[in-house]
Amino acid sequence: MTPDGFSDAEVTALREVTPGTANVLHFNNAGAGLMSQGVLDALTAHLELEAQIGGYEAAAARATERNLAYDAIATYLNCRADEIALVENATVAWNQAFFAVLETLQPGDRILTVEAEYASNYLTYLMARETRGIVIDVAPVTEAGETDVAAMANLVGPRTRLIAATHIPTNGGLVNPAEAIGRIARQADITYLLDACQSVGQRALDVEKIGCDFLSATGRKYLRGPRGTGFLYASQRALERYKPPTIDLHAAAWDRVDGYSWAKGAARFENWEYYEAGRIGLAVAVDEMLAIGVERIETRTTALAAELRDRLTALPGFAVHDLGPTRCGIVTFTHPRLEAVQVQAALSAQQINVSTSSAASTRLDMQKRGLPTLVRASVHYYNDQQELDRFIAAVDHLGR
Amino acid sequence: MTPDGFSDAEVTALREVTPGTANVLHFNNAGAGLMSQGVLDALTAHLELEAQIGGYEAAAARATERNLAYDAIATYLNCRADEIALVENATVAWNQAFFAVLETLQPGDRILTVEAEYASNYLTYLMARETRGIVIDVAPVTEAGETDVAAMANLVGPRTRLIAATHIPTNGGLVNPAEAIGRIARQADITYLLDACQSVGQRALDVEKIGCDFLSATGRKYLRGPRGTGFLYASQRALERYKPPTIDLHAAAWDRVDGYSWAKGAARFENWEYYEAGRIGLAVAVDEMLAIGVERIETRTTALAAELRDRLTALPGFAVHDLGPTRCGIVTFTHPRLEAVQVQAALSAQQINVSTSSAASTRLDMQKRGLPTLVRASVHYYNDQQELDRFIAAVDHLGR
Repeated sequence: MTPDGFSDAEVTALREVTPGTANVLHFNNAGAGLMSQGVLDALTAHLELEAQIGGYEAAAARATERNLAYDAIATYLNCRADEIALVENATVAWNQAFFAVLETLQPGDRILTVEAEYASNYLTYLMARETRGIVIDVAPVTEAGETDVAAMANLVGPRTRLIAATHIPTNGGLVNPAEAIGRIARQADITYLLDACQSVGQRALDVEKIGCDFLSATGRKYLRGPRGTGFLYASQRALERYKPPTIDLHAAAWDRVDGYSWAKGAARFENWEYYEAGRIGLAVAVDEMLAIGVERIETRTTALAAELRDRLTALPGFAVHDLGPTRCGIVTFTHPRLEAVQVQAALSAQQINVSTSSAASTRLDMQKRGLPTLVRASVHYYNDQQELDRFIAAVDHLGR
Repeated sequence: MTPDGFSDAEVTALREVTPGTANVLHFNNAGAGLMSQGVLDALTAHLELEAQIGGYEAAAARATERNLAYDAIATYLNCRADEIALVENATVAWNQAFFAVLETLQPGDRILTVEAEYASNYLTYLMARETRGIVIDVAPVTEAGETDVAAMANLVGPRTRLIAATHIPTNGGLVNPAEAIGRIARQADITYLLDACQSVGQRALDVEKIGCDFLSATGRKYLRGPRGTGFLYASQRALERYKPPTIDLHAAAWDRVDGYSWAKGAARFENWEYYEAGRIGLAVAVDEMLAIGVERIETRTTALAAELRDRLTALPGFAVHDLGPTRCGIVTFTHPRLEAVQVQAALSAQQINVSTSSAASTRLDMQKRGLPTLVRASVHYYNDQQELDRFIAAVDHLGR
């Protein structure tokens, strides 16, 4: 048993049901996690069934399986199944929540966000500033690099209508204090939208403890689900307060010529056109995560990343650029001589997968810190000690 | 050679590469067409590659294949590849166009639509009426049941800002006169959004001839592509006139702290999170359609449906409820004694796939005509004479 609670035998078994581990050293879990054989089988089996008997007919034949994701995600997040909307991806999930809130805002109303906010979210604030006269406030960070909760609380004013924060930024290793931000939101009765795109699947998440009204997520990253899947948690409170920004014959019933009735629960944030195989595969992925145990996954992923940071820092000239007192499975670093894209390409030639993070992804943070494009190595519970050793040897050897 | 230009040998060959034809008599192509073996193989091969080497790594390895859909669709629609946005489904495609236009409207501005408009679109007009004070005008139909183009032209007023029409309604067999509607739009310089969800894949479409600014579509119906795929045609003119209603780091570059630059072309209507296997499969589906020939498909599908209507009409007590001088592959009918859902269930037990259409899908039309829920049988080019015979025998025998 290793200190993180996973025996070597368990890790070996988890790798055996993850076919990609035989081919690649995958440190790009923050891009897309490697699918398990179970998720892949669920996807391909459903697509084959669609080809064999028809798309709608396959969905009807798998009526149970296509709804399992609601319960699995609700179990994970500690919410009700009817507070979950299954949508196309995290972008759609986040947009459904954000534009629902935006529809209620007046010029001069303020959005409070964080310094490491994800580009796509911040771009949407900039667009809303142009089109609706919204004002953007950005909470500063502490010396340690996480969102300064006390400073954030001071930024709450009478016109603050939304607190929107990225839980785990796309780079920088940081875990923002989602629960402390939630206490600010609850105290001031301000709607709170948490972008959990990078945290679902690598950390325990409890929407009651976090105190968020909305939480958006993708299936393809640490959850190891299919690309083309995502979900939105919309709390009872949010459902009472906001209407969805879009509508269709699934989200509402056209039950009279001149009007309609919204669907009950978070289904009103969904639409009719599903990637059915994807939602079945997503349920398998979430169930597999629950079977392993979210807290255990968090412990192991955090520990592997911490070791990776230590060993990278010990290499001459390498610099780790991660922030905050609480860190996750994402590690960002620079090589002494090579640019990030060169590192990525050189590692790729050795079947080692990493990603790069440019300023355009989290510009407020990256520009302030004056950082170039970084190498992003993101580990998961199925990565092992041998891979860490091989990775360190490989990056150490680069550019020599 | 049959009168529609397909030899028996060709139809047999097309059925052989459509695995579902061995299992089901599929008259639910307006729901989702049967995928070909080629589309299925493209999907599963890419999903397997993702599991083997990683999601982003698989996308990079298939950089060519993942972009083939742009060219294939542009060839089909007679437009430029950079006027095509690949999106999650037809709902997203239509919403991206509609909300782009809505953002520019003032209270009292008018939307002109058609009587057989699809529920999801009409629901959106009703929502926009509530939230933005938009006025909805509905063009009546001729005695034959198609949109009355002269009457529609008379409804154009100084406040008409958008003409939005469903090309082929979800039921009723009708093909609306898209080109004639386009002439009204061009003459009055009004933006024209065509919902081609049911027409792509069964009819020749030329956006220049149609004269539309936007055209939205799904992959899963007559195109026989994967579920979870769709696209939007956004003309150069539309791109100059409108900004997308959503933004992310794919649609725009966050190139300075306080601003951004939109991506060139229709890419600004897309987002970063792709169902990669789906877009690769969609390209295969469109290419297969182009190889067969869109005009030939239109001829055969129309002929098969016409025969089906004639033979259903000849059955005692059966009634076909299709409209218009130009009809498509969709046939809607009622059984003398059984309700539509009973017919669907009884046929399903015989491996015959049909769908049902309720008033909630096209309420203006269905309620005016006082129709109950209809059986919808939608044929495609890979259906054959033996299936028509078997279908007629099966429905004739029901309820006896």
